[in-house]
Amino acid sequence: MTSAADWWETGIIRMAPGVVELRGIPVQDLIGRAGFVPTIWLMVRGGLPDPRQAALLEAALVASVDHGPQAPSIAIARMTATCGVGLNNAMASGVNALGDSHGGAGQQCVEVLSDIVARQADGLDVNTAAEDVITRYRLKNRYVPGFGHRFHPVDPRRAPLLELVDRAVAEGVVAGGHIAAARAVEAFLNRGRAKPVPMNIDGATAVIYAELGFAPELARGLFVLSRSVGILAHAWEETTRGTRNKGPIPRSVLPTYRGEPSHAARDTARTEPEPPV
Amino acid sequence: MTSAADWWETGIIRMAPGVVELRGIPVQDLIGRAGFVPTIWLMVRGGLPDPRQAALLEAALVASVDHGPQAPSIAIARMTATCGVGLNNAMASGVNALGDSHGGAGQQCVEVLSDIVARQADGLDVNTAAEDVITRYRLKNRYVPGFGHRFHPVDPRRAPLLELVDRAVAEGVVAGGHIAAARAVEAFLNRGRAKPVPMNIDGATAVIYAELGFAPELARGLFVLSRSVGILAHAWEETTRGTRNKGPIPRSVLPTYRGEPSHAARDTARTEPEPPV
Amino acid sequence: MTSAADWWETGIIRMAPGVVELRGIPVQDLIGRAGFVPTIWLMVRGGLPDPRQAALLEAALVASVDHGPQAPSIAIARMTATCGVGLNNAMASGVNALGDSHGGAGQQCVEVLSDIVARQADGLDVNTAAEDVITRYRLKNRYVPGFGHRFHPVDPRRAPLLELVDRAVAEGVVAGGHIAAARAVEAFLNRGRAKPVPMNIDGATAVIYAELGFAPELARGLFVLSRSVGILAHAWEETTRGTRNKGPIPRSVLPTYRGEPSHAARDTARTEPEPPV
Amino acid sequence: MTSAADWWETGIIRMAPGVVELRGIPVQDLIGRAGFVPTIWLMVRGGLPDPRQAALLEAALVASVDHGPQAPSIAIARMTATCGVGLNNAMASGVNALGDSHGGAGQQCVEVLSDIVARQADGLDVNTAAEDVITRYRLKNRYVPGFGHRFHPVDPRRAPLLELVDRAVAEGVVAGGHIAAARAVEAFLNRGRAKPVPMNIDGATAVIYAELGFAPELARGLFVLSRSVGILAHAWEETTRGTRNKGPIPRSVLPTYRGEPSHAARDTARTEPEPPV
Repeated sequence: MTSAADWWETGIIRMAPGVVELRGIPVQDLIGRAGFVPTIWLMVRGGLPDPRQAALLEAALVASVDHGPQAPSIAIARMTATCGVGLNNAMASGVNALGDSHGGAGQQCVEVLSDIVARQADGLDVNTAAEDVITRYRLKNRYVPGFGHRFHPVDPRRAPLLELVDRAVAEGVVAGGHIAAARAVEAFLNRGRAKPVPMNIDGATAVIYAELGFAPELARGLFVLSRSVGILAHAWEETTRGTRNKGPIPRSVLPTYRGEPSHAARDTARTEPEPPV
Repeated sequence: MTSAADWWETGIIRMAPGVVELRGIPVQDLIGRAGFVPTIWLMVRGGLPDPRQAALLEAALVASVDHGPQAPSIAIARMTATCGVGLNNAMASGVNALGDSHGGAGQQCVEVLSDIVARQADGLDVNTAAEDVITRYRLKNRYVPGFGHRFHPVDPRRAPLLELVDRAVAEGVVAGGHIAAARAVEAFLNRGRAKPVPMNIDGATAVIYAELGFAPELARGLFVLSRSVGILAHAWEETTRGTRNKGPIPRSVLPTYRGEPSHAARDTARTEPEPPV
Repeated sequence: MTSAADWWETGIIRMAPGVVELRGIPVQDLIGRAGFVPTIWLMVRGGLPDPRQAALLEAALVASVDHGPQAPSIAIARMTATCGVGLNNAMASGVNALGDSHGGAGQQCVEVLSDIVARQADGLDVNTAAEDVITRYRLKNRYVPGFGHRFHPVDPRRAPLLELVDRAVAEGVVAGGHIAAARAVEAFLNRGRAKPVPMNIDGATAVIYAELGFAPELARGLFVLSRSVGILAHAWEETTRGTRNKGPIPRSVLPTYRGEPSHAARDTARTEPEPPV
Repeated sequence: MTSAADWWETGIIRMAPGVVELRGIPVQDLIGRAGFVPTIWLMVRGGLPDPRQAALLEAALVASVDHGPQAPSIAIARMTATCGVGLNNAMASGVNALGDSHGGAGQQCVEVLSDIVARQADGLDVNTAAEDVITRYRLKNRYVPGFGHRFHPVDPRRAPLLELVDRAVAEGVVAGGHIAAARAVEAFLNRGRAKPVPMNIDGATAVIYAELGFAPELARGLFVLSRSVGILAHAWEETTRGTRNKGPIPRSVLPTYRGEPSHAARDTARTEPEPPV
């Protein structure tokens, strides 16, 4: 029979009166000594990163902080912030929207890239492995996560991120298998196409998370930490404007109704409800 | 190019100054005339139910309102309510936990039962169809949704619910294909077993939602409406007690730590962080 | 030292293997016998309501189910539903927005009406009490909760609800102090005004919740239960449309930017970040 | 009449095909060049911090990442993660609990410290100003935010944080008014007390946020960003353990029931529900 203490057992933090240790390190040895990004690494996987590993992670986190009020997470946080709740509640609602299709692409892309790297262990070269994995993936999924973009023909975040990874590969900080896989996917997807299907921000950051050895689900978690910054900034900005109950469109606009015709139009007097269907 | 009004087009509600119509019915014709449960039906699928259909839905909603503080949704709502947020925020956090494994069983069970009914269109009898569908289901899933229970050997909600369905079948209110499928699954699961695997609350309510023709995802949505009642009651009760920042276990209990040994134990002086791993 | 069992003590539900009792009533005695609305009453405050009390509560719950996609809770639920999360998560985000200014008005109105009723115990007549309480309230608050509306000149839900309360007063189901207080407030607010400040849906439902003796915070909780119906209906409708990552406005529209001018405009080459401000 | 584009106007980010600018800075000029913490500063208030300002903010963010599974935000995230929802949903529920009493203390403390600094503009010395503000504060509030702690007699995070602020004051990075105010509060609270009331983590980080000039609400927002790291780590750890529907206490424990006695105990047969109360 499990005790209450064991029911809440963890390997992340040891707490006792006067003691706070994170993965074995006293918190007072981290304050002023370890940066926020190395602390993130420590907390989610244990150990501290090499400074150059940390720099790669830092770049990925910086890159994803915001994508504007047309991103559902941002709009939702802004609207919630006008409804008389706390800033944390507005942030929570924004984060709650970072699901499979709005934030989950990074996780799915890490899985795909890792698949391609694994297939090379069977002796395949990267291009064949990429073609193989993507072909099978597209049997069940419409979109290949990490590639293509409905907004940017060329995502301004892509090149700087891949440049940093290339440098890290050259310096031996990361192995390079995942960026090679990603480039192979991009080449395969663009074969014979006039209109390019470029690697996007989800793909570029997935490359980084995968090269650094983070589990796929953590790719989503780290994206959430990053996007939380934009969510906070936008929720705060909206709060300073004093709007109450901000809806999605200007107040004067009435959402179009295309449904069952009005029963009131048929009878002007107060009538019985329609017979059940 | 879509207008803002069309971007928010809906078939559920028509709003104009002085006008609120739900699925074509003026709201003033519902107030005091239509019950809350028929209104739920109207809103999620359109039309109003036969009173006996409404009674079945009502029973399913009553049955699922609560399962005590050991249910994560209930505990979470209670704890959130002590953290200085609004009652709606506490309720939201409770509802947010009603996912695939804690609330989603009803949805998955409706899908399974509907599968079995569909297979009978191929000419199979219900028992063979049940065996077929369940066998394939268990290749990919550990639990058959709607059956078995870690808490109740016999769930006190099962018999009353199935009784109501049997009566509804006898009166021609519902067709009976899904309750037959559920009984066939139960029989198959229990073949040769000493310890029974009974249909549980998720299964019994799934039978009702399926017999009434609700889409599987709405089985989860309707469960959420039902469980929201218990979530509200518990959040409110906790609020009246004045506890602040309620954790999961009594304050005197320290969660067990089983992780990296303390670095502080090795060096008594303030030291450099451990070399990166 | 509190035990784990006592840490989670409740007076709402008794659970044991084979037993589920809500406020002392075996759940099997409620299924098929007690309606959903009486069950809501039972869960949040104990005891079962008189059928005419239940009918009043039912009307209030029916009245508040939806107010269209311009209500933040509705828009947020619709957008979240397109982001690859579960229906419960979309509902949670909608509910999370029902804060002080979007759902809290009912709670605040119950408090104001109860204040006015209490002041009459000091011997004041209702009109003087209303003037007194509202005057003091308006020193600290811009809006009087329950009165006025930015959308409906005449809210179609107001008259039917107040009619039901008047009938309940005549039949001795409720005392009538709170509806009298609300009418006194309306009269006071409209004194000498060309443009009316009518009691709105929050006011009319607050009258019902107050007459029925619900605590003010429960007025918000009950509004949440009601609005959850519209939240579910809209989240589900949006799900059936297949949009991914629905933002607040049509995709072709770029949110206006009015901030720090572009640094890129000043330097075409990749430059150092601006000196810190 | 506002356009849809203007309805979503912002000064934080400029988006156009191929362009992402944060507060005027092209994102590609931040990637690999600006750290995550300076980017946080840029996003929430504009401009980039001096490296020594950034270091102070970094220390505050590192200090607050976790406080163990007894913190409601952490327990809630862990439980939600076992319910078959996405990691982002588990994180959202954790963040949703960081309200006034569990995360809001930093915001309230910044307000109190800023009050004390402002009062000195009237000519008061810091000790008199502190006594004055705290005395008035305690007329309406039971707890002085930022001081005292139910867990740590001496919080191990306090001294390192204050040391960093002292150094920053000595170097002219911050003015020092808020840390002086905080020390004056601590002295006043401890006057004549045997059992100390020390400044705690909320107080020490509030000192930093206030010295750096962040608005009080942003103190809560920044705490949310920090605590999101622990929330992610714990949600992820719980996910790796495979528990389903984790409740707050071991499964074998039944929450205590202290409510209306069982009606079933009175009648063994299925009976009518109790007469309404």
